[in-house]
Amino acid sequence: MTKILDGAALAREIRTEVATSVLEIKKVHGLTPGLAAVLVGDDPASAVYVRNKEKACAEAGMFSKTFRLPKETTQEEILALLNRLNEDDSFHGILVQLPLPDHLNETVTIEAIAPIKDADGIHPFNLGKLMQGIPDFIPGTPAGIQQILLRNGYDPSGKHVVICGRSNIVGKPLATLLAQRNDGGNATVTVCHTKTNNLSELTAQADILIAAIGQPRAITSDMVKPGCVIIDVGINRIEDSSRKNGYRLVGDVDFDDVSPLAEAITPVPGGVGPMTIAMLLVNTVKAARMQAKVD
Amino acid sequence: MTKILDGAALAREIRTEVATSVLEIKKVHGLTPGLAAVLVGDDPASAVYVRNKEKACAEAGMFSKTFRLPKETTQEEILALLNRLNEDDSFHGILVQLPLPDHLNETVTIEAIAPIKDADGIHPFNLGKLMQGIPDFIPGTPAGIQQILLRNGYDPSGKHVVICGRSNIVGKPLATLLAQRNDGGNATVTVCHTKTNNLSELTAQADILIAAIGQPRAITSDMVKPGCVIIDVGINRIEDSSRKNGYRLVGDVDFDDVSPLAEAITPVPGGVGPMTIAMLLVNTVKAARMQAKVD
Repeated sequence: MTKILDGAALAREIRTEVATSVLEIKKVHGLTPGLAAVLVGDDPASAVYVRNKEKACAEAGMFSKTFRLPKETTQEEILALLNRLNEDDSFHGILVQLPLPDHLNETVTIEAIAPIKDADGIHPFNLGKLMQGIPDFIPGTPAGIQQILLRNGYDPSGKHVVICGRSNIVGKPLATLLAQRNDGGNATVTVCHTKTNNLSELTAQADILIAAIGQPRAITSDMVKPGCVIIDVGINRIEDSSRKNGYRLVGDVDFDDVSPLAEAITPVPGGVGPMTIAMLLVNTVKAARMQAKVD
Repeated sequence: MTKILDGAALAREIRTEVATSVLEIKKVHGLTPGLAAVLVGDDPASAVYVRNKEKACAEAGMFSKTFRLPKETTQEEILALLNRLNEDDSFHGILVQLPLPDHLNETVTIEAIAPIKDADGIHPFNLGKLMQGIPDFIPGTPAGIQQILLRNGYDPSGKHVVICGRSNIVGKPLATLLAQRNDGGNATVTVCHTKTNNLSELTAQADILIAAIGQPRAITSDMVKPGCVIIDVGINRIEDSSRKNGYRLVGDVDFDDVSPLAEAITPVPGGVGPMTIAMLLVNTVKAARMQAKVD
């Protein structure tokens, strides 16, 4: 029987651990971990994401506040806000919800977050520490994928991990995380992408296959090795006239076709997605401990 | 006929280009690119490396100065020196020769270099920018390997590059550099290391094989695909009683065994080694241009 890797349940477990940790920090150190979320413009999906993060903070006993800026916000204004938040001791973590409106420079904006408050782990300083194998903060999706593997008994050490996709928030940091000479790492890692010639030849070698390409059901059963573990990072809308809203969500893996072959697989939704917010909370609590020099 | 990839000749070519660029900067902008080298202790190999870098700077018309500190130097003293050099406009690049004596913290020391003066490209901020695909400075050895490939007509795009080794100065930054969605990148990259189970099965798939494991002649002919391109980063001393000094240098690849199979291969010495210093000069000139806002 194929094991379904239930990310929603695991995320709840981690969020409960975070809540326990927050209670302890409050009680022993008189400190409430706080997260500032910066949301520019009125993209409905971004608004939902930020609301979910706020809710998760509240449930874990953390403080959070969302700074909603109009879509006309200038670069100077967002940098000024980030400078203020960097100085504000009530916020230990800061996240800027991406994407930003086109007139704002994402690189400049992210680099303006103090690395020690970078709860998303996407500041270049933190990506560099990750590459060195001494991360302070690991980006939420890679960290969540690593936890799904480890907490289900699939230690990547010595395994061949094939990652399809090379984004800055998933593929690239995940490759460095899983190849690292650290606990939870030590995998042999192959990174594939749009320029890869023989994709299915490589995916068929994977002990652990990570799909993060943003193409609905692109990974099919002829591309995988029987008995492999599959992590599906994709979240794609496809038309579905049988649904009231006219669509449904599918991953980058053709679940019905592939899952019978796999030893284990994440569903979409309910796989990687919920883990990302859980790891954001983990990072924020870690940031609070680091800033308060609690450990 | 196997092509021997002559890194020494290519390094001379690049150093000549740097010298031309330095002349132009001097003439048009009245600026002399300057490199500060920090050498702690009396390790003879480190002293040779630093002397070679000084010499290369002088030949390219650049200014350089080596700060020689006794091996008892404290962490505070080296940080104080780096702070001074960060502020000193005559130095556009700063390098700290590694390894440092055991009582000094390498991480803390490297992080004290201003990222914009980090000529070795090993500050976490610069490694993070590299991972994001928008590097200011690429570490010398990975940058040199990329140049060897490109300038000999071996564009890695679409090729399967297998890297043996995951050090912070070679394997990891090289993997991210060659997989990047940039000119000179776009390779499918596999990183192998000591925990890799089926090393020869993976190396045999490489269109371009990079050996950076620090084991003399570990890569043998049964491990490579006929017609592949091989870059040997290793520099190992082995006993050789026929030599006056009692040793000779060999790479991580068994050259005599493997080279007949390869389309092209770097020799050791005279392959990757000379490129590292050339790329240090390139970085220093780039740093000077950035700091003087010349471009």
